[in-house]
Amino acid sequence: MLSARISRSLASRLQPQSTQALRSLSSGCQRRSLATVTTATAGSRHRRRNIGYIASAAAAVTLSYGLWRQNEAYCDAVSDDKQRRAEGPITDSDPMRLRMESFIKSLQNKIVQDVEAIDGKQFTRTAWQRPEGGEGITCVLQDGNVFEKAGVGVSVVYGQLPKAAVEQMRHDRGKEITADGPVPFFAAGISLVMHPHNPNCPTVHLNYRYFEIENPDGTPKMWWFGGGSDLTPSYLFEDDAIHFHQVLKDGCDKADKRYYKDFKQWCDKYFYIKHRGEARGIGGIFFDDLDDKPAEELFTFVKDMGNRFSMSYLPIVKKRMNMKFTPEMKRWQQIRRGRYVEFNLVWDRGTKFGLQTPGARIEAILMSLPLTSRWEYMHEPEVSTEEADLLEVLKNPRDWVPLD
Amino acid sequence: MLSARISRSLASRLQPQSTQALRSLSSGCQRRSLATVTTATAGSRHRRRNIGYIASAAAAVTLSYGLWRQNEAYCDAVSDDKQRRAEGPITDSDPMRLRMESFIKSLQNKIVQDVEAIDGKQFTRTAWQRPEGGEGITCVLQDGNVFEKAGVGVSVVYGQLPKAAVEQMRHDRGKEITADGPVPFFAAGISLVMHPHNPNCPTVHLNYRYFEIENPDGTPKMWWFGGGSDLTPSYLFEDDAIHFHQVLKDGCDKADKRYYKDFKQWCDKYFYIKHRGEARGIGGIFFDDLDDKPAEELFTFVKDMGNRFSMSYLPIVKKRMNMKFTPEMKRWQQIRRGRYVEFNLVWDRGTKFGLQTPGARIEAILMSLPLTSRWEYMHEPEVSTEEADLLEVLKNPRDWVPLD
Repeated sequence: MLSARISRSLASRLQPQSTQALRSLSSGCQRRSLATVTTATAGSRHRRRNIGYIASAAAAVTLSYGLWRQNEAYCDAVSDDKQRRAEGPITDSDPMRLRMESFIKSLQNKIVQDVEAIDGKQFTRTAWQRPEGGEGITCVLQDGNVFEKAGVGVSVVYGQLPKAAVEQMRHDRGKEITADGPVPFFAAGISLVMHPHNPNCPTVHLNYRYFEIENPDGTPKMWWFGGGSDLTPSYLFEDDAIHFHQVLKDGCDKADKRYYKDFKQWCDKYFYIKHRGEARGIGGIFFDDLDDKPAEELFTFVKDMGNRFSMSYLPIVKKRMNMKFTPEMKRWQQIRRGRYVEFNLVWDRGTKFGLQTPGARIEAILMSLPLTSRWEYMHEPEVSTEEADLLEVLKNPRDWVPLD
Repeated sequence: MLSARISRSLASRLQPQSTQALRSLSSGCQRRSLATVTTATAGSRHRRRNIGYIASAAAAVTLSYGLWRQNEAYCDAVSDDKQRRAEGPITDSDPMRLRMESFIKSLQNKIVQDVEAIDGKQFTRTAWQRPEGGEGITCVLQDGNVFEKAGVGVSVVYGQLPKAAVEQMRHDRGKEITADGPVPFFAAGISLVMHPHNPNCPTVHLNYRYFEIENPDGTPKMWWFGGGSDLTPSYLFEDDAIHFHQVLKDGCDKADKRYYKDFKQWCDKYFYIKHRGEARGIGGIFFDDLDDKPAEELFTFVKDMGNRFSMSYLPIVKKRMNMKFTPEMKRWQQIRRGRYVEFNLVWDRGTKFGLQTPGARIEAILMSLPLTSRWEYMHEPEVSTEEADLLEVLKNPRDWVPLD
């Protein structure tokens, strides 16, 4: 088992708003399997191997970065996964790739339904395919009754890390990747951001993702999980902050007593608007490169955290969505939305990486932005107001529940 | 005379929205001159030299980047300039630093007055000082009668380029800087952005700046001008585009027949929202590293271009500010404003540099952002609409006036 590496570079940039960015990294198999015959076991992860290929009748696929699939075994993995999906429901004996994909798709469905039940308006669902390998579903609810904008996206990407990215991973993260050329990878993630209308109702963000780097034979050489969830209120209700953090802590504690403290602090550090000297919101948890336990255990942890979303956030929405508010409160919310935009466009590594990746699906990456926002020159809340109270907490992050 | 270098790196990042960012680079003289006695001439640029110092009574200034002023001669230049300002009006025989400062301050006044005459509401004026050397004036009109937000900023900075920046300049731009440590620099610039309420009325941006790198004896070792002006309509009026470009071309042609073509194309290239595959607006001119003629000639050019602002833009405002518009047009304008935010926060080198510079005056850097903006998921204008016409021009920049 690989030890956890907290250093960040490429893979940590592939988050948290936009695992969608991944799909723009190149992939694309030139061969397709005819049949799946044998099964090989590697630890808890099962892999199917192929015999028999035919050359794809399709003309050569033009790939981003001009890379071509050179790795037959990895092509088999893509084809295997495709075939396996067609055969029927994914089970615990399938590869983690398929299990994570299956989990995030069902979580997306569940969350979308839960939110629709509160809002009364339906999400629009857009399914998309990457010709080079991979797919996604983006669900967005805009101008709803409760939510100004809410987006829940899932993406599943088979791609190749360009040589430069491999070198960066090797250098910055100490990943022992021996290949000299492009390295096959897999990434699957769920991302969501919800901006309610009512300024008393906080914005929320969640992202959980699984990443694999493949061996030449298609088995996972390295893998890790990442993700987290955080809350961004315009007006601070301490009860809400405590409730949100407690639900996350309870989930973390089930997996590892150290997780909540570590990931809460990591979250405060990550979602920080450096040029403003303030946090984006009141935090939550954030982690990356997580591989310090068997994949099976970490998958259980990630599933539990994902499943906790509705319970962590929706009770807060129900409590706040019908509260009265003034135009001044709406204006403050709009200014805070501006800060949200600043964080996402200036500091969020996933968004930045996505926007700078040729061919990325921009609408999926930017679904996290609020519908409306505002920038007032030199705006400062007056002292001893609720707005000033929020700023105080953003400048000095608080521990909402005991860390240990 | 140094040849013009079109390559860009650090200095070209010091623009165009935010020469203000410069003030956060460190400076701060530990000594102050008592008297200015002699004058030395270097080409068309006159420099005063100091004799006599006293140690500043002030406690050591804490500098960004932890740098300390080590260059006595350069401290003299700062003190000289300070003393010279106190002595009376700047004339043509003063150093370019002081002449540029004087020009941009009077241009700022003139533009602010012209805009106030149209809007009917006053700008708020904020003067600020950098303890380490330098100052600025930021004028902002918010929620006016014609303008939703208009900002005109001037900044004058005495600073030190950190070693890493010097190395980058040497490497990326071939600047022959021989010093091993921090290198003194001077930068002065005017920046403006105006966002009118009426969607028929375009947003405008202008920036002109002067940059000097100093010799150990305080004379300018290298210098260059940069700047430009560009127009960002939500609805395209070809007459307006032609008028705006013609005024710029007339100015360019007076200086050099090649300038307009070169700078128009540079502008199209620079103000490009890569992740959207569209220009920010319908262009104008943009240039940097301009030192291909004597400083005197280029200063005349820059002054002329700055003085052309009111004539290039304000007639358009007067023509469009009272036109009728629908809520749908306002919505489209808000979406275009969102794109403006995307360009400034994601791609504009000056803004990015400023936001990542510790201690920068963020409010001055971000005064360029609109008061309000909007992000709709998957918004596409319908075919054969005015909105689609604009997008077509943004995707395929046009030559509004003959280039030669």
